[in-house]
Amino acid sequence: MAAPSYLLKNGPRDALVPFSSRLKEGRALAEDVWSIYNVANLPADCINLGQGYMNFLPPKWVTEAASKALLGVTENHYSHPKGRMRLRQALKSMYSPLFNRDLDVESEILVTSGANEGQYSVFTAFLEQGDEVIMFEPFFDQYLPSITFNGGTPVYVPLHPPKADVKKPTSNQWTIDLAELRAAITPRTKMIIVNTPHNPVGKVFSRQELEGIAALAEEFNLLVMSDEVYETLTFDGEEHVRIATLPGMWDRTVTVGSAGKQFAATGWRVGWLIGPASIIRPTLAATTRIVFCTNSPLQEAAAAGIEEAEKRGYYAQQRTEYTERRKILTDVFDALGLTYSLPLGSYFILVDIRKVQFPDDFPFPPSVLGRARDFRVAWFIATEIGVSSIPVSEFYCEEHASIGEAFIRFSFCKDHETLHRAAERLQQKLKKYIVQ
Amino acid sequence: MAAPSYLLKNGPRDALVPFSSRLKEGRALAEDVWSIYNVANLPADCINLGQGYMNFLPPKWVTEAASKALLGVTENHYSHPKGRMRLRQALKSMYSPLFNRDLDVESEILVTSGANEGQYSVFTAFLEQGDEVIMFEPFFDQYLPSITFNGGTPVYVPLHPPKADVKKPTSNQWTIDLAELRAAITPRTKMIIVNTPHNPVGKVFSRQELEGIAALAEEFNLLVMSDEVYETLTFDGEEHVRIATLPGMWDRTVTVGSAGKQFAATGWRVGWLIGPASIIRPTLAATTRIVFCTNSPLQEAAAAGIEEAEKRGYYAQQRTEYTERRKILTDVFDALGLTYSLPLGSYFILVDIRKVQFPDDFPFPPSVLGRARDFRVAWFIATEIGVSSIPVSEFYCEEHASIGEAFIRFSFCKDHETLHRAAERLQQKLKKYIVQ
Repeated sequence: MAAPSYLLKNGPRDALVPFSSRLKEGRALAEDVWSIYNVANLPADCINLGQGYMNFLPPKWVTEAASKALLGVTENHYSHPKGRMRLRQALKSMYSPLFNRDLDVESEILVTSGANEGQYSVFTAFLEQGDEVIMFEPFFDQYLPSITFNGGTPVYVPLHPPKADVKKPTSNQWTIDLAELRAAITPRTKMIIVNTPHNPVGKVFSRQELEGIAALAEEFNLLVMSDEVYETLTFDGEEHVRIATLPGMWDRTVTVGSAGKQFAATGWRVGWLIGPASIIRPTLAATTRIVFCTNSPLQEAAAAGIEEAEKRGYYAQQRTEYTERRKILTDVFDALGLTYSLPLGSYFILVDIRKVQFPDDFPFPPSVLGRARDFRVAWFIATEIGVSSIPVSEFYCEEHASIGEAFIRFSFCKDHETLHRAAERLQQKLKKYIVQ
Repeated sequence: MAAPSYLLKNGPRDALVPFSSRLKEGRALAEDVWSIYNVANLPADCINLGQGYMNFLPPKWVTEAASKALLGVTENHYSHPKGRMRLRQALKSMYSPLFNRDLDVESEILVTSGANEGQYSVFTAFLEQGDEVIMFEPFFDQYLPSITFNGGTPVYVPLHPPKADVKKPTSNQWTIDLAELRAAITPRTKMIIVNTPHNPVGKVFSRQELEGIAALAEEFNLLVMSDEVYETLTFDGEEHVRIATLPGMWDRTVTVGSAGKQFAATGWRVGWLIGPASIIRPTLAATTRIVFCTNSPLQEAAAAGIEEAEKRGYYAQQRTEYTERRKILTDVFDALGLTYSLPLGSYFILVDIRKVQFPDDFPFPPSVLGRARDFRVAWFIATEIGVSSIPVSEFYCEEHASIGEAFIRFSFCKDHETLHRAAERLQQKLKKYIVQ
């Protein structure tokens, strides 16, 4: 694949000293989907439902805590690499009941510079050259280079879409096949990545599914990295089960959380890891060298957010708002007769676009031609209808891309007005391109 | 070496799945000097001149810009991995004249999550397994594990202390030996790290010295990483020369800067890299995967700081204040008859402690016994006199630790009142332990 557009804007040139061969793996220099469907490449009035960040503010009482922190001396200087004690205490209070244990702020909680850097540090701390890491497809695209940069080898196990005869599928009808998972395990397997609620599927893994994964992790002595950054965004009463709380799993699981997702503050870069000392301590050694510590003022804000969220009824209200946002989009897909997987978690919705028929002579750019069909559908809808999305085949390995190419992903982490405008455009302009 | 105390507070336990062998190198799990001389281990009223962070606030007009940024939607969400355009523009305006070129904000400037993460990303982007990186000793201790985590091998070339007959040495009388540097270069050498102004020596490298290093970099086709985070902190009219501006050097040099150092905000984690596209682009690919992007509100604040610093006369005023701070300490060392290297840059001062004679029966903890003599002197002064510092042998490889053990490092990035109290204690209580 070609290098990403933002790396090549002024044309490539040869380095005097060549860059590391690790950049040649894991799509690190590939033209990634975020660059192709970036607002800069799309019509100016295109409504951005592609990238997963909010177009609204964090709660005022959280940003005010950040402003207050900026008035303090220590709040403007280095934090301990483990994270600020106030935030670790807040995390302990929030998560101890959720993990059914009295979490130790010194050895079982680690603040990181976003969930992304936390995950990267786990790979740095645990992977040996050639270690295999299993992930379910579709997968959050950052996992791949984060693994290969640290010498690991990604191994893919697909989630299977709902059967064709399911009329109103939910995200939870995307299924794992435990026999496929078992078959993917080799003597070099070190870790399984679980992502629940799942990006981009919206699937909330059931207890039974997680028990199946846990049994294999136990049998083969594997670590589990459980990416639960959308944990507070589950809908319709769906229960978020934590694989770390299953019998025997605490000792081999590290759970990933995110202030950005919980408080609509994706630009704060404050995340955390929760797990046993045997995982947190080596990961602390890694993150201490990678970033030294996480920014202090926004750790204080995250702490304030977590301290007050429950008593303010914040998470419940947020779930209600996201349920409303989801409905704005599902209503229009229902009206258009497009099948989608109703997401029970996260803020993404996968829409089956096999019925969308773009004109044969539509002028696609080279970055989209030669990719799977969903790249063209997403491009067509962005440029002709004016609503951007992300093609889902990008979240599969090449071998399995054909599973993903039936879907595009819309984000509903946008304000109601934006979603209504997007729904109107889809309603008015997409209809004639749908073949029932 | 044992694991650091903060990693082992609750005692070690075996991991079910062992951590990566890369943590066994580069002192990654070593009991680091920051843990031993941490305020938590020292008397409560000990004055902390050990760690290099300020005990005062960033300028009000900079923190106010951060508070203002927190009111904006995009300022709370993901930034581009290259950094926010406002900050890249501010950096372009500041640095284009300093590098004598019209810097391109798309390909020659990269915002990173602190200077530390920027440096880490350069190593990720360029090192192959077994590549050698040359650093001058004493060295900033984070370089070492940042290199080994990325498969590199550190190679050490000592800075030589001022000759014994120099009565009032300055930091610039610490010298490099170009023959030693040349002898350290092998076919596996990929990079030389330059650090000017230097931590912990305070040396500001001369044009002639940098020309000598540059000639070898050219001859052997090496990259140069020039850590210039103390660039705005030079004293007595000393000129800060940038190795990237020497003939032919732009194409092989990446220069590292820090908002934390410029604006007394070490906890903001905003730094930057400036260099040719051939270095910045692979490094962008690395940092995009390591942290994705840097926190947005404090990038806005750093931008505001850089936009206004010159017209407010901020850097000049800061240099005056630091010169006054430095004098508070040098006055007392003069009065005590202790030799020091007058630092012409940075906010560290190295004091020769060979004349300090602690009692034979002083009760040292195990973490300090068995290390070089400077560890005991620093511990004695911290616990008996009440002023903490950092032993300098920590910044040398074991083979060369004997050069460093003659010195301890005091930081003068503290407010005047704190420095005066420290000076008083040293004046009143240390005198009797000095053998003239």
